[in-house]
Amino acid sequence: MSNPKVIGIDFGGTSVKLAVVEGAELLTEVHRIPTQEYRGPDALIEAIVGEVQTIRESHPTVKAIGIGVPGAVDFSKGVTYNLTNVEGWTDIPLCDRIREKTGLPTVLDNDANCMAFAEWKFGAGRGFHNVICVTLGTGVGGGLILNDRIYRGSAFAAGEIGQMSIDYDGVDGPYGNSGALERYIGNRQIEEMAGEMYREKGLPVPENHTPEGLADLARGGDAVAGEAWERVARYLASCLMSTVYLLNPDVIVVGGGVAYAGSILFDPLRRRLKESLTVECYDNLSVIPAEFGNTAGILGSSAMAVDFVQSPPVI
Amino acid sequence: MSNPKVIGIDFGGTSVKLAVVEGAELLTEVHRIPTQEYRGPDALIEAIVGEVQTIRESHPTVKAIGIGVPGAVDFSKGVTYNLTNVEGWTDIPLCDRIREKTGLPTVLDNDANCMAFAEWKFGAGRGFHNVICVTLGTGVGGGLILNDRIYRGSAFAAGEIGQMSIDYDGVDGPYGNSGALERYIGNRQIEEMAGEMYREKGLPVPENHTPEGLADLARGGDAVAGEAWERVARYLASCLMSTVYLLNPDVIVVGGGVAYAGSILFDPLRRRLKESLTVECYDNLSVIPAEFGNTAGILGSSAMAVDFVQSPPVI
Repeated sequence: MSNPKVIGIDFGGTSVKLAVVEGAELLTEVHRIPTQEYRGPDALIEAIVGEVQTIRESHPTVKAIGIGVPGAVDFSKGVTYNLTNVEGWTDIPLCDRIREKTGLPTVLDNDANCMAFAEWKFGAGRGFHNVICVTLGTGVGGGLILNDRIYRGSAFAAGEIGQMSIDYDGVDGPYGNSGALERYIGNRQIEEMAGEMYREKGLPVPENHTPEGLADLARGGDAVAGEAWERVARYLASCLMSTVYLLNPDVIVVGGGVAYAGSILFDPLRRRLKESLTVECYDNLSVIPAEFGNTAGILGSSAMAVDFVQSPPVI
Repeated sequence: MSNPKVIGIDFGGTSVKLAVVEGAELLTEVHRIPTQEYRGPDALIEAIVGEVQTIRESHPTVKAIGIGVPGAVDFSKGVTYNLTNVEGWTDIPLCDRIREKTGLPTVLDNDANCMAFAEWKFGAGRGFHNVICVTLGTGVGGGLILNDRIYRGSAFAAGEIGQMSIDYDGVDGPYGNSGALERYIGNRQIEEMAGEMYREKGLPVPENHTPEGLADLARGGDAVAGEAWERVARYLASCLMSTVYLLNPDVIVVGGGVAYAGSILFDPLRRRLKESLTVECYDNLSVIPAEFGNTAGILGSSAMAVDFVQSPPVI
């Protein structure tokens, strides 16, 4: 079955990005709409539809639209529950609204699921049956491919790795979930933890102690930065270990800004997983970086659109 | 499709139990072979085959055999990796051995998966798409039904809820897995914890402070026993909360001896889950006791045998 052309949309808090996609290939440049310049869903949907119609003038054969959004959705209805960092998007029937104005089948999912789908279809998770994707950034998100299908859960809320607990008596998460991983290894939390570690040792806090800055420092031999990354790996490994005992996947794909630390993160992460998993679980497991960065949302949402038109889900 | 008659076998450390099953109904009494009286797999397999042939004399139409074992298996090959509390069962091709001698298709899985399958097909998880089963006893085990299929994982090792961590810096588990749930709420651990709690308060330790004894005491108003169960619920809730954030199931089915505590366990467990989950996850979730006790292994293994002959897995 050849790949139809579709439009992939990555709806972010800063910008809505659109492109025409065929398979894993972008056929156009990425069009951008600045999210915050539009007040409320009506105006932004109007802008998205306008951009879609512009794109269709040069690509009249696009068959469907896929959208990834930063927040909870009802996949079966194509409705957003609420979006992180974008106000006014509670219970918006985004798919219907776009379909009505464009005539194109439209599918909607959260951005972590789109990322997981892209990595599984075209990237680091290609060819595996059971794939755990985790994204490390301001927040910690995740998406699951199980038995060769994206697994969304009963209320389309699965994959919330950042809300899993690594300490029953730990730091409070946003929903009363004590020990939520996100509260240990979100961007800001890493920065704060490292700052505290420098101060405890009576050392000056480096100006750039973001995850990226800390990775550079650790690679340059800075002991505190190295120790900070050891702690990040320890927290993350605890959660991923639990995930592996529960799901026994083939592969864990780690993406997001924090993952750019590379071996500074992956070496201690793999070592800790090896030390805490059964041989049968670890020997079967790969822990690898994501292949796609900024384009994962567009690639994943467009791949979902292709699936949707080729085999509409029975729900 | 009518249910064929099959033989379900629950291979336990104390006894191997066999019965003829049709659907969820046992058509015979439960036959028992004392596991420890047979030295090594050869003698025990011989005894099992003998019992199967005896059973077939009165039930000549049985179509298949299902076996649940207490330990890790290769489901696709029908081989036991190793069994808990039964020596000598490493790499035994149990299915082939029984098939060769009986001529019947034979399928093998671990006992927690059999329990989950029984509860999903016939019991507390009936009609749900996504079911987490957890068994609380000497150890803590689990089985998963996801998207209306039993989920076994890439090396048939999924569902090990007892090995998930509730504390990245906690009590060591058997595989170096710090904070392993089983090391907090296994039978023996509950007993030790409660004993310690009585002693800390300068109170005499009740003679029967097993989970069962503690449940009776708590129901009778014993404050320390009540507090012990609160702690058990807290540990279990932390792990199940993580499981729900990851898998967003319809239902959690709780079985095993510890679950007989009833509302002494379930009330604080549900309360803590409600306090730590998003509304969309909790509103969609039931937390209920298992329906089957001792017969879960026979019912689940026989149901797997039925599935196996009706639609052999493609692996």
